Amino acid sequence: MPIKVTFWHEFRHEKTKPEAKALYPDGLHAYLKSILECEVIEITLAALDDPNQGITDELLNNTDVLMWWGHAYHKEVDDELVEKIRQRVYAGMGFLPLHSAHHSKPFQRIIGCTGNLRWGRNQKAIIWNLAPWHPIAKGIPMSFQLTEELYSEPFYIPKPDEIIFGTWFEDGNLFRGGLTFRRGLGKIFYFHTGHETVDSLKNENVHRIIKNAIYWCAPDEKSDFYDGETFHQTEPIVK
Amino acid sequence: MPIKVTFWHEFRHEKTKPEAKALYPDGLHAYLKSILECEVIEITLAALDDPNQGITDELLNNTDVLMWWGHAYHKEVDDELVEKIRQRVYAGMGFLPLHSAHHSKPFQRIIGCTGNLRWGRNQKAIIWNLAPWHPIAKGIPMSFQLTEELYSEPFYIPKPDEIIFGTWFEDGNLFRGGLTFRRGLGKIFYFHTGHETVDSLKNENVHRIIKNAIYWCAPDEKSDFYDGETFHQTEPIVK
Amino acid sequence: MPIKVTFWHEFRHEKTKPEAKALYPDGLHAYLKSILECEVIEITLAALDDPNQGITDELLNNTDVLMWWGHAYHKEVDDELVEKIRQRVYAGMGFLPLHSAHHSKPFQRIIGCTGNLRWGRNQKAIIWNLAPWHPIAKGIPMSFQLTEELYSEPFYIPKPDEIIFGTWFEDGNLFRGGLTFRRGLGKIFYFHTGHETVDSLKNENVHRIIKNAIYWCAPDEKSDFYDGETFHQTEPIVK
Amino acid sequence: MPIKVTFWHEFRHEKTKPEAKALYPDGLHAYLKSILECEVIEITLAALDDPNQGITDELLNNTDVLMWWGHAYHKEVDDELVEKIRQRVYAGMGFLPLHSAHHSKPFQRIIGCTGNLRWGRNQKAIIWNLAPWHPIAKGIPMSFQLTEELYSEPFYIPKPDEIIFGTWFEDGNLFRGGLTFRRGLGKIFYFHTGHETVDSLKNENVHRIIKNAIYWCAPDEKSDFYDGETFHQTEPIVK
Repeated sequence: MPIKVTFWHEFRHEKTKPEAKALYPDGLHAYLKSILECEVIEITLAALDDPNQGITDELLNNTDVLMWWGHAYHKEVDDELVEKIRQRVYAGMGFLPLHSAHHSKPFQRIIGCTGNLRWGRNQKAIIWNLAPWHPIAKGIPMSFQLTEELYSEPFYIPKPDEIIFGTWFEDGNLFRGGLTFRRGLGKIFYFHTGHETVDSLKNENVHRIIKNAIYWCAPDEKSDFYDGETFHQTEPIVK
Repeated sequence: MPIKVTFWHEFRHEKTKPEAKALYPDGLHAYLKSILECEVIEITLAALDDPNQGITDELLNNTDVLMWWGHAYHKEVDDELVEKIRQRVYAGMGFLPLHSAHHSKPFQRIIGCTGNLRWGRNQKAIIWNLAPWHPIAKGIPMSFQLTEELYSEPFYIPKPDEIIFGTWFEDGNLFRGGLTFRRGLGKIFYFHTGHETVDSLKNENVHRIIKNAIYWCAPDEKSDFYDGETFHQTEPIVK
Repeated sequence: MPIKVTFWHEFRHEKTKPEAKALYPDGLHAYLKSILECEVIEITLAALDDPNQGITDELLNNTDVLMWWGHAYHKEVDDELVEKIRQRVYAGMGFLPLHSAHHSKPFQRIIGCTGNLRWGRNQKAIIWNLAPWHPIAKGIPMSFQLTEELYSEPFYIPKPDEIIFGTWFEDGNLFRGGLTFRRGLGKIFYFHTGHETVDSLKNENVHRIIKNAIYWCAPDEKSDFYDGETFHQTEPIVK
Repeated sequence: MPIKVTFWHEFRHEKTKPEAKALYPDGLHAYLKSILECEVIEITLAALDDPNQGITDELLNNTDVLMWWGHAYHKEVDDELVEKIRQRVYAGMGFLPLHSAHHSKPFQRIIGCTGNLRWGRNQKAIIWNLAPWHPIAKGIPMSFQLTEELYSEPFYIPKPDEIIFGTWFEDGNLFRGGLTFRRGLGKIFYFHTGHETVDSLKNENVHRIIKNAIYWCAPDEKSDFYDGETFHQTEPIVK
């Protein structure tokens, strides 16, 4: 059974910013789909300007891992949809926010944070592998170099479960940039790469990381007593 | 400067349930106020049926630590108020949910969880001190006994920062019952005691724990660069 | 390739205590070997009174996961052997201390703790599954009952990475009884079951947990840059 | 009552390396004593070449916080002394290893790690404040610059309780450089500054951090049931 990934993308910059369009003519979501899709990963694309903002109940209920890229139009995302996504994650769906999705409504709502950070110009970035034993870091070298938009501490997030990657930036900043969280039954991996005017998503290590993360985020086998969905048992425990 | 505590209470059971009324004729919030208030702790009472559900913007903005007790009427709490509370906590206000507030909108929204758990009849409970070094456990013995409503694992919460107390229940259950979290700049302590038909809130160790928690939850001195309120700096970092 | 497990056992109680002998005529290590061994798990038995205290360098260097049961004769274990075990764990060997191995030299030395705790008579114990999503908890119900020696908080250990199981005891105590740690490249799972005069090791859930833990503890594929063995690179990083 | 600090220093480089001697004619320990000592902090100096390697039982038993600086002569430190230090820390003494003490026997033994890391030339380093709410970070800006020896990931340590500071290095490396751990009742803060041929210890933020850490590491008030010293209660718990 393949893992069913839905990649939700704001998908506006590639239509309006020439550099973004040049890099990803069909959108960065379509580019990543072409790279990541394989026998065991099936990717459905969804965009803000699609009907239902790209996500019907049926699609959501059939999604194992939701990838999310948003940047300038977070506010347009429908609150009711955000709430449905939150519930699905708490019930076990994986969630994989990329780059500026740290400020998206689903990220804030699922994690419980503002996701505020500091940022700056595109520049040389070196990603350090801080958790070589973690499945998401499998096959990733000690460090590798990218061009990426500066994202910097302070990053306003609750303590992550694991810090998988830390990123060094040329301008003198550092950033906890690859992080895992668990909320309800859902596993979450935030990764800071993917600015629309740099080619960081074309890096092979980034491909490997995202692929690893999809495998890692995929829902566990359902437990018969721990389902994340049931609100408060309706009857008291009887002895 | 005293710590300004607002104790928000659903305050309906004491008006309708004879056992609750007998235990706390003026409400459990008024009872705890009479116990906890001192030179350095000032407590304002607020209730669901007060105008503005008890919490005006002015009161909220002048609150250092918000205590919360809700049980059967969580749904009535206004979503806009919940959102304002969440913002205040992320900007540094302490939050101290008691007992069934694990299912309150502010708890779910601030922490990022459903807060689901299992529950049962009132019974003998023994609270174990699992973090004797923590300020909230100061002066608390290794263990002490109460009568309390059964709250049991599985408890659907993200990994807490610290597990301060673990509770043993006569019926064979255990519960992570005293927990700290940090969200934004705000410190949160959840404590499971306080059912309306038992006298657990009259226990001196419980008083000491709540008092310790108020001190611990009170906002830190403001940092000049880390304020929890600013969304995303508006200008890029200039070098 | 099967996982090569070495089960080191003090193996004296079964020779001198009639109840222990009755339960495990050939030693509890031999009993567990008969249960756990399978196509992918190969178990070598080792005992304190064997030559070299049961563990030659060759055996140690060919062990993927070291199980350890010790109780009354911790002090006899050779310090040099303890030091070799520590080094192997930091270089990736899994370590699975059972029951009173919380007080063994390897546990104390590898984890960095005294492992002190409180204890009492054999009694009814209920093991609660606090991490249903964790590979060690796979297939384990919400809770299950055993007869086991009372082990109780306060348990003097550093913060574990995960608390997989919490145990309720009839006498009113609770215990963080199934815990994971990582030290160097080695994964460690401590589990409190296995007193020599109760039959807890004959419980099917306990079998499943130990088997799960062997799979989980087995060394990861070697990373080419993170090997746990190299002390301090010998040359500075050249740019 | 002042906090009694003992600063143990290898104290050989300042006698043999001209740059070190020029920076710290009486040793870096004497320099820091002149800066840190105040009404509430009393510092005793101790050195490897002193009688008893500088630390008698009496001194150790009267030390609240032990600072440690060692680099090239770790192996000379007496194992029995290391064992006594470990016991004192587990019983509540604070421990504050600086710079290359990550490789000292007390650090390895107390924490349970090799402390291996990568290193390189002295260079520009920027220390980022990742835990502005923590007492050790009180009064410390968002980031500040030093010249320091390169210390880099991968750093072979167990998961720290808190990452207080992360350090950016000019050569493209980063390092978890200011870390807290708890072992037994003892609080530990590792801080990577203090190479003998740079003036990082003369930085005012570094002074403030070390002072904050001394306050934070000082032993808590003794609990009557949790003392870190008692091995295993001698009698079973009687009900």
